[in-house]
Amino acid sequence: MNILNSQVEAYIEQLNRIAFIEDEEILKEMEDYAHKNDFPIIDRTVGRLIYLITKLKNPKLVIELGSGYGYSAYYFAKAMNYGKVVLTDYQEKNLSMAKSYFERLGLLDKADFRVGNAIEIAKEYKDIDILFLDLEKTKYLEAILRLKDNLKVGSLVIADNTLWYGKVAQDNPDDKTAKIKEFNEYMFKSREFFSILIPLRDGVLISSKIE
Amino acid sequence: MNILNSQVEAYIEQLNRIAFIEDEEILKEMEDYAHKNDFPIIDRTVGRLIYLITKLKNPKLVIELGSGYGYSAYYFAKAMNYGKVVLTDYQEKNLSMAKSYFERLGLLDKADFRVGNAIEIAKEYKDIDILFLDLEKTKYLEAILRLKDNLKVGSLVIADNTLWYGKVAQDNPDDKTAKIKEFNEYMFKSREFFSILIPLRDGVLISSKIE
Ligand SMILES: C[S@@+](CC[C@H](N)C(=O)[O-])C[C@H]1O[C@@H](n2cnc3c(N)ncnc32)[C@H](O)[C@@H]1O
Ligand SMILES: C[S@@+](CC[C@H](N)C(=O)[O-])C[C@H]1O[C@@H](n2cnc3c(N)ncnc32)[C@H](O)[C@@H]1O
Repeated sequence: MNILNSQVEAYIEQLNRIAFIEDEEILKEMEDYAHKNDFPIIDRTVGRLIYLITKLKNPKLVIELGSGYGYSAYYFAKAMNYGKVVLTDYQEKNLSMAKSYFERLGLLDKADFRVGNAIEIAKEYKDIDILFLDLEKTKYLEAILRLKDNLKVGSLVIADNTLWYGKVAQDNPDDKTAKIKEFNEYMFKSREFFSILIPLRDGVLISSKIE
Repeated sequence: MNILNSQVEAYIEQLNRIAFIEDEEILKEMEDYAHKNDFPIIDRTVGRLIYLITKLKNPKLVIELGSGYGYSAYYFAKAMNYGKVVLTDYQEKNLSMAKSYFERLGLLDKADFRVGNAIEIAKEYKDIDILFLDLEKTKYLEAILRLKDNLKVGSLVIADNTLWYGKVAQDNPDDKTAKIKEFNEYMFKSREFFSILIPLRDGVLISSKIE
């Protein structure tokens, strides 16, 4: 199932490619790595969305739950004027790759790298300005319930894969899909958040914490 | 041609409907008016995107080029903490409808209503924080070229209908489609703007003015 009409998707992708971006070569290398190794990362269109939103928000503290080797973290770090993005991953190997990319990108001073359970690590931080969810898809709702008191008023939650290949819109959801649907419904119904869902790539939910 | 898979579109629409919004009844009435009279307006999903972006931006001056009877202007005004949204339209009748809706919504102090050529009216303002394009589709590029010096650094341009029923992605574009494509390409290529295109409804381009 295609979420977006494939011609339209290609059109948007192509517009994103004609835009100037400073670190084109390294980004291309990171994208190629994902492609060759079947490593799930966001794409250029979602990256640019994150960049624009982060510029508008001007955060001091961004926490990523599930950073892989740092592709999504690039867009946060690049858009930040001060402060840090905290990258988390179970796998040491991923974060050491991230570190070496960030070194080449000149962004090391804007990042912390923390190996371990992403939710437990995030729990250590207060006053989170942006929380990015890209960990196991069954854990999104748990992550929010456990971390919402660590989020500042006016902070943003950005969650990837919230359309889950379009499966959230189909009948008889499997367990993983059902969990994502539950998360989406929670975020839209909650009076503590104002939410939108953007159908770029696999679906990006963006929520602002109201009170 | 469907831009978004129709099941996915319905899913996102339904999430937007379960969310609390203060002025539900009047918004529903405005949406019904559009439906009955075939009046082209943005929809709830684009409205909520505008609301969230406006909250993040916290603008003093928003100018809409092509306001109709004020449905899109609602989301700007509602999200603003101070300042004004300037509604423009050729047609007096549209803006007097907008005025009466804004009165019922308690938003009159956040709006100015200006009948006439939208671009000429906008030219009178300096330091625009958000410029919303929803006028004739052939005029988008002209509007930007004539108004970009009136935009503040860091300001946003938000343009509706930039996927134009998906026609921008098809071969042999008609004149109107070609004009929109030209506009999109200009915004993505320009080193003065950082742009993204969001495939909600008929496509929303959002650009941030860099320098
Ligand atoms: C989808 S990938 C991240 C991609 C990255 N956000 C990007 O777009 O560039 C998910 C990563 O999260 C890690 N992960 C999943 N659940 C986690 C958890 N609970 N704690 C820490 N890491 C987790 C996995 O090891 C994997 O590297
Ligand atoms: C698509 S409708 C606006 C809908 C509105 N933005 C909304 O979403 O609720 C476009 C409106 O722009 C007006 N319009 C188009 N070109 C214009 C121009 N150059 N100057 C002033 N008004 C214009 C039309 O009269 C029409 O009411």
